[in-house]
Amino acid sequence: MAEKFLSERNLMFLLHEVFDVSSLSRYAYYREYDRKMLDMVIQAALELARGLLEPCFQEMDRNPPELAADVVKVHPSVRKIMKTLGEGGWIAMTVPEELDGQQLPQIVADACRFIFCAANYSAAAYSGLTDGAARLIENFGSKELYATYVPNMRSGRWQGTMALTEPEAGSSLADIVTTAEPSQEGYYRIHGQKIFISAGDHDGVDNVVHLMLAKIPGAPAGVKGISLFVVPKKRLAENGDLVPNDVVASGIFHKLGYRGCPAVQLSMGDKNDCRGYLVGEPHKGLTYMFQMMNEARIGVGMGATAMATAAYYASLAYAGIRKQGRKVTQKDPSLAPSPIIEHADVKRMLLFQKAVVEGSLSLLLQCSKYVDLKKVGDAEEKAKYGLLLDLLTPVAKSYPAETGILSICQGLQCLGGSGYCDDYPLEQYYRDARIHPIHEGTTGIHGIDLLGRKVIIKNGRAFDIYAEEVRQTISETASEERLRPYSETLEKALAQLEDVTGHLKRVAAAGNLELFLADATLYLELFGLVTIAWQWLRQGMFAFRGLDGASLDKERNFYKGKIYALRFFFAYELPKMKGLVERLMSSDGLTVEMDTAYFKD
Amino acid sequence: MAEKFLSERNLMFLLHEVFDVSSLSRYAYYREYDRKMLDMVIQAALELARGLLEPCFQEMDRNPPELAADVVKVHPSVRKIMKTLGEGGWIAMTVPEELDGQQLPQIVADACRFIFCAANYSAAAYSGLTDGAARLIENFGSKELYATYVPNMRSGRWQGTMALTEPEAGSSLADIVTTAEPSQEGYYRIHGQKIFISAGDHDGVDNVVHLMLAKIPGAPAGVKGISLFVVPKKRLAENGDLVPNDVVASGIFHKLGYRGCPAVQLSMGDKNDCRGYLVGEPHKGLTYMFQMMNEARIGVGMGATAMATAAYYASLAYAGIRKQGRKVTQKDPSLAPSPIIEHADVKRMLLFQKAVVEGSLSLLLQCSKYVDLKKVGDAEEKAKYGLLLDLLTPVAKSYPAETGILSICQGLQCLGGSGYCDDYPLEQYYRDARIHPIHEGTTGIHGIDLLGRKVIIKNGRAFDIYAEEVRQTISETASEERLRPYSETLEKALAQLEDVTGHLKRVAAAGNLELFLADATLYLELFGLVTIAWQWLRQGMFAFRGLDGASLDKERNFYKGKIYALRFFFAYELPKMKGLVERLMSSDGLTVEMDTAYFKD
Repeated sequence: MAEKFLSERNLMFLLHEVFDVSSLSRYAYYREYDRKMLDMVIQAALELARGLLEPCFQEMDRNPPELAADVVKVHPSVRKIMKTLGEGGWIAMTVPEELDGQQLPQIVADACRFIFCAANYSAAAYSGLTDGAARLIENFGSKELYATYVPNMRSGRWQGTMALTEPEAGSSLADIVTTAEPSQEGYYRIHGQKIFISAGDHDGVDNVVHLMLAKIPGAPAGVKGISLFVVPKKRLAENGDLVPNDVVASGIFHKLGYRGCPAVQLSMGDKNDCRGYLVGEPHKGLTYMFQMMNEARIGVGMGATAMATAAYYASLAYAGIRKQGRKVTQKDPSLAPSPIIEHADVKRMLLFQKAVVEGSLSLLLQCSKYVDLKKVGDAEEKAKYGLLLDLLTPVAKSYPAETGILSICQGLQCLGGSGYCDDYPLEQYYRDARIHPIHEGTTGIHGIDLLGRKVIIKNGRAFDIYAEEVRQTISETASEERLRPYSETLEKALAQLEDVTGHLKRVAAAGNLELFLADATLYLELFGLVTIAWQWLRQGMFAFRGLDGASLDKERNFYKGKIYALRFFFAYELPKMKGLVERLMSSDGLTVEMDTAYFKD
Repeated sequence: MAEKFLSERNLMFLLHEVFDVSSLSRYAYYREYDRKMLDMVIQAALELARGLLEPCFQEMDRNPPELAADVVKVHPSVRKIMKTLGEGGWIAMTVPEELDGQQLPQIVADACRFIFCAANYSAAAYSGLTDGAARLIENFGSKELYATYVPNMRSGRWQGTMALTEPEAGSSLADIVTTAEPSQEGYYRIHGQKIFISAGDHDGVDNVVHLMLAKIPGAPAGVKGISLFVVPKKRLAENGDLVPNDVVASGIFHKLGYRGCPAVQLSMGDKNDCRGYLVGEPHKGLTYMFQMMNEARIGVGMGATAMATAAYYASLAYAGIRKQGRKVTQKDPSLAPSPIIEHADVKRMLLFQKAVVEGSLSLLLQCSKYVDLKKVGDAEEKAKYGLLLDLLTPVAKSYPAETGILSICQGLQCLGGSGYCDDYPLEQYYRDARIHPIHEGTTGIHGIDLLGRKVIIKNGRAFDIYAEEVRQTISETASEERLRPYSETLEKALAQLEDVTGHLKRVAAAGNLELFLADATLYLELFGLVTIAWQWLRQGMFAFRGLDGASLDKERNFYKGKIYALRFFFAYELPKMKGLVERLMSSDGLTVEMDTAYFKD
């Protein structure tokens, strides 16, 4: 039996009490999914997580991938995991039934991904990447591409990847130099290098299908000249055999963590025989890729939340049994020591983790529900939820990524010296989690995306809808006296966020773009605090409802825990916005004007 | 030639311009040390750091200690390093000349330790621990103990350790169970287990000398019954031979980082033949040990600062050469990409690191100077600087430990994906640095030490002296118009810290001790912010003086960099106190009252 790495009760609370997932069954598309069906899916995911993924969590870290004779060797579990997930339909959770998928609501699919990532993030990455890559082909590729690649990917036999980054082009995709030369035969001849490609090559599958960005000669400069290609490791020969496609795993990166999944350097076209197949139209590659990237960004937020959740439960378990010291009011050394969970400072560290991970999960499932409503709603709903998702994606990626590290840091701290040693999983979570502020766009990139794009576009419409949603929650909780202090505080916090946003927009309007975006990362941080506070207020509303209706102590304790975490977030975390607001309102241009020569000493 | 891991110019600025170390030569004890002599010492330390310590920084991490046949095998460099440092007098820097030491001012010795730790923290730990252990014997041990152990330790032939922690007693030393039974022959028979003992056994020296806490049977319960013993790995037989002393390395911990130095589990007395030699009087062990612990705590702060400094320079070097993206005002993709150091967000990350590491180093050298003034001053000065040191020790340990991690995190982030890979040293710093909030007392313990002891004792006298020192700096800078905004802000920040302190003391006076200390960790964080702001204001004063007198661009740039870092700290870091003040003034008892059952779900 695996250690507890998530709370099933909390997941049920969010899915059913807060987000009322069964209500989605009123839409024809989701009519099959009543509560019983949904719960069965979650239970099946939990079983796989406990039986298949969690058992190799540590082992995959201790035996990282190796490159041998152009092939990346990964842990033997990977093949079993891909096969099992593929055959079980877990790489086609949200695919329509007519395409042999499960047609699951996004929110339930994401809950399953949360479960997999909490058990073993590296192991879950293989199938997650494959799912996203397959969907790109589904949505934008030809029927031939679909038939050749997608069924093999969704069954777990072939790996999918996102092949974007190059040695000289990471955050700035405008600068990619991989080329795709059209041939007479209709395919493109690919030449170039890609780096940091997750699951970019491995022996746990029979083929690897890269969704790769490249430039067709003569294309416009910058992002407007990027096209998207399917570039398989092995291509189908006319006789139906799989033959090598001149994509070579030329290197592997030795990483701090996330070691169960290889980061690969790829070399294409060394023998001038690497064929790529155009997806959709030329020069529209980045637009297509952004579909996958946006999903992947929410996926990173979910992975970060899942990892921090697992770390939280590991530290909670330790704090409950480790005895050390006595309460400050009971210093008599002849008394038995207390479990450290009884010390206020340890409770503070645990509540911090609880507030972060349960607040983050709530936000992510909120986003998932928006995806569902966008998918099945009417035109107005599609527009509304599309804009909300655009706005919240950088927040839902970055808050869990950045704060998740701090949360794991506090989890490790609860264990003291033991947390620093590999007898406990905290040190691995601490290493693994550090990838999240980096992959799928650094936090800095997301700050600029939020403030410089999402908040601005359509004359600020997305932000206005967001503010309406938050105020909706505030007004829904108005009748609950016990939530009054929190709803009032959130109202003020939102107003401050609006003030800051207005101030920054005026800076932009005055033409000072660099100054406008200089502290975009801090703006993102501020936005995250207000957004998670909103999610806690929402949870608080349902927690009080649950508390009032609960008869069992166990249930009452669960809801009380929710209420304490809500109180904690408003008492300890939300006040951090004060310093951020002060900074963001000043716009003194310090980092813009500073000459880089002043760093030299 | 090693990469740059610290700024010699900054060290000279702090030592000479800010702390005027040569002025110490007016005290008879330090009369030998004029500026020329001091600079020679620093240069010699730099040479050792570059030639001896830094070259094996990565190698010691990649080849961590192993336990084989009861002996811990460490990297072969360790023996060479201990020998070289011992023979060069570096393990006796502050020892009086009459005891064959260098009689160096503490501030210069600490600057040398900073240099060593920035080059290779693990490697520097061996000699640092030995120095502290030797001083304990010097100060409290008998002449026989001194003669047997100290010269061998100071020459680097024998390792010294602090052997405190046991499986059931880490933060709570009251609960140690290692016993020391008196024998007819004058020695004590030791039985017990110690864990996490840094350099607790290794083959880079000929012997290991443990300064070990144990309890004599019949001793009072708790900390008042703890005695201090010298427990060597090998003891001197009557014929002068070194014979095994029944201290066995029974285990080794596999750590996240700080891997160049082993953390050892020790088993004493398995054969009933482990002899310990009492240091000083029975039952006073913890008082003696606190001398070493207080030094070690400042040492941890210095190590944390040094590590974050090295990480800062690694990220600065990368940011200067890595080209990616363009300024938001120059989005034309046909333009060449900019070095990332030109992006405001990257400058922000670099300035954060600069502000943290140079602010921390300033505080640590401030503490070192207090040690000197306490040593050579008159009775009144001894009392004053003693109290200041007591108060500032938890701050000087914890601010660099906690903020150093955040600083390294930002350094890693500057490198993006490369920061996550072991081709660059950032990932190692990120792992290594995580030890600092744990060893020599966790941050939680230091919070309680600061608020529950140092701020309270002698009717708050230490705090009052601290406030006087800060106000002294404020009044010294009053005539400098360019510093006015910062001195005024600091004046207000100090007043807020006083308000919070007064509020918390009233909570304590009302008898609610648990509530009083519940957020002691946040109080420590607040104290750190104000204290580092004070150090930045001090540096600012000397930076403007330097700037006004500088003729070379290089020099002017250095001082301007200082002024930007000062501005940054006041604009970005100090405002974080607002959220902390709000929290600390509320004392709502959230973490005290929460029932631990509410964590269960």
